[in-house]
Amino acid sequence: MKRPWSGQVEKEEEDRVPQHDPNNPLCPGNTRANGEVNPDYNNTYVFENDFPALQPDAPDPGFNQHPLFQSKAARGVCKVMCFHPWSDVTLPLMTLPDIIKVIDKWAELMVDLGSTYPWVQIFENKGAMMGCSNPHPHCQVWASNFLPNEATLSDRCQREYLKTHGEPLLLQYAKMEAERQERVVVQNADWLAVVPYWATWPFQTLLLPRRHVQRLTNLTAQEREGLASIMKRLLTKYDNLFQISFPYSMGWHGAPTGPYLKEDQFHWQLHAHYYPPLLRSASVRKFMVGYEMLAQEQRDLTPEQVIHLGNRPRL
Amino acid sequence: MKRPWSGQVEKEEEDRVPQHDPNNPLCPGNTRANGEVNPDYNNTYVFENDFPALQPDAPDPGFNQHPLFQSKAARGVCKVMCFHPWSDVTLPLMTLPDIIKVIDKWAELMVDLGSTYPWVQIFENKGAMMGCSNPHPHCQVWASNFLPNEATLSDRCQREYLKTHGEPLLLQYAKMEAERQERVVVQNADWLAVVPYWATWPFQTLLLPRRHVQRLTNLTAQEREGLASIMKRLLTKYDNLFQISFPYSMGWHGAPTGPYLKEDQFHWQLHAHYYPPLLRSASVRKFMVGYEMLAQEQRDLTPEQVIHLGNRPRL
Ligand SMILES: O=P(O)(O)O[C@H]1O[C@H](CO)[C@@H](O)[C@H](O)[C@H]1O
Ligand SMILES: O=P(O)(O)O[C@H]1O[C@H](CO)[C@@H](O)[C@H](O)[C@H]1O
Repeated sequence: MKRPWSGQVEKEEEDRVPQHDPNNPLCPGNTRANGEVNPDYNNTYVFENDFPALQPDAPDPGFNQHPLFQSKAARGVCKVMCFHPWSDVTLPLMTLPDIIKVIDKWAELMVDLGSTYPWVQIFENKGAMMGCSNPHPHCQVWASNFLPNEATLSDRCQREYLKTHGEPLLLQYAKMEAERQERVVVQNADWLAVVPYWATWPFQTLLLPRRHVQRLTNLTAQEREGLASIMKRLLTKYDNLFQISFPYSMGWHGAPTGPYLKEDQFHWQLHAHYYPPLLRSASVRKFMVGYEMLAQEQRDLTPEQVIHLGNRPRL
Repeated sequence: MKRPWSGQVEKEEEDRVPQHDPNNPLCPGNTRANGEVNPDYNNTYVFENDFPALQPDAPDPGFNQHPLFQSKAARGVCKVMCFHPWSDVTLPLMTLPDIIKVIDKWAELMVDLGSTYPWVQIFENKGAMMGCSNPHPHCQVWASNFLPNEATLSDRCQREYLKTHGEPLLLQYAKMEAERQERVVVQNADWLAVVPYWATWPFQTLLLPRRHVQRLTNLTAQEREGLASIMKRLLTKYDNLFQISFPYSMGWHGAPTGPYLKEDQFHWQLHAHYYPPLLRSASVRKFMVGYEMLAQEQRDLTPEQVIHLGNRPRL
């Protein structure tokens, strides 16, 4: 953190976004790339991504004999979910009832797509720095006919931990962080947001229910309210940190679905990861490059230092 | 690749770099942060990083009882290696004899640091987009008292492949790519650069010797010449692709050192990875964000399409 920085500096201010842009395919009433017209929606709005990375009918690449040249069809669907009809709001600026509508829609999509697909990845890329190609508040939902790498790894680690230690990993972890109060960013009766002990991104957080919950679909009405409230507080803290609309990628991980709905998934605990790219200021990011790509991720700040920064009063 | 892009656009032209900048701590004759004065060097120059991420005497974090709260001291050294006395050159612009001096110095550092440290990571972050904080041509060398994650994974996969298939993974792979000629970018008598079958970054390449070589230190004089030549050709191709000094992170992986020097490392094949961030043009990068961070990396272009782009004649 003491190195002089003469490297890349990010643009500090995003261009002012109008509430409604007649050329933005995510706004109500506008026409999208495929010719469809968006309804005049009032809260959330879900549609099929017009440029999907996954498609239900991806062709089979055929049989590959050699172990070094293996490929398989990746099939699925990609949806886009607008959070709000206005382009100039973000989740922390929305009202609690409107955030609850987002959570309810997430759960609804998990039921729908999860009925057949083994993995449904809900994720939000926020801010130009995180590759977001449209400023309208939205997230994406990609459902696949396979368990992606991160899901497989998370499943394996949680399964092994339960076997060895007799308790779900993240349930035990949440309890211990709640007791220690060293890395807790925000908390309420049902939820906890911490900078995880093993964080690699400087301001990374992990959002967890306190109760053992395997999937978004299992949250009670009260837990959904509590989630809306803790998300608003967490994201407001992020925005306050450097006095900007804080960029991040976030996403939900819960027990796999589709054929896995019939299996025991006791080892799973629902959680959301927040991965923000910033390090020193609104314009100097952490670059996960050379050593990180080729050897191992390395932190510039410990989680405990980060918590301290986040609690520093701002002028 | 067909999505409209209204996301972040990178600065196309880097500011013109002077051949010698009296304020740049990497230039010959200048004073560094610790007060030391650089010699008037003629080719390469190696010094200790003044802001090292690894230190030989990192304190022991003490014993952690709980399995979820484990930490260990990461000890090591971080060196910086300048490639050339001038700030306004890059490897592809250097002469072959000067590139050979870089390769010889790499091998020398591997001998020195590798005599005790199990892993010596040589890597170059090139370009502001890849977090490079100083425009002077240089790489870094971080030696650690542990095998980093990527090294552990690479070791495990190569070991398992040899056990199952009776031949080192990357030796067999290089032979097959040389035969197929579908993903080869450049080649000569001793070396091969391919867009690997499993590439995730659009213009990612893998640079391999054709002979079974475990470490940089085992390269013959002829192989070092061939390496200088293929690096110059590969990096010139990169620069020509979008007509800019092409950004990337690159690094060498070879058999581990220190205590591992005494063990059988037949499964290892030396190789270098090149990870460039660009996707569509000099100013639109591939963002490895949301789905990639939370689920699995996904490609926008197949390796075969990339080869085709790279061979397209430029005006
Ligand atoms: O050492 P530098 O060039 O100051 O820093 C660069 O490389 C390091 C090692 O890959 C990264 O940890 C930093 O994020 C990056 O900015
Ligand atoms: O889908 P978008 O917003 O066009 O694209 C963004 O998210 C995708 C999924 O994380 C990434 O693959 C793209 O690189 C990124 O720019």
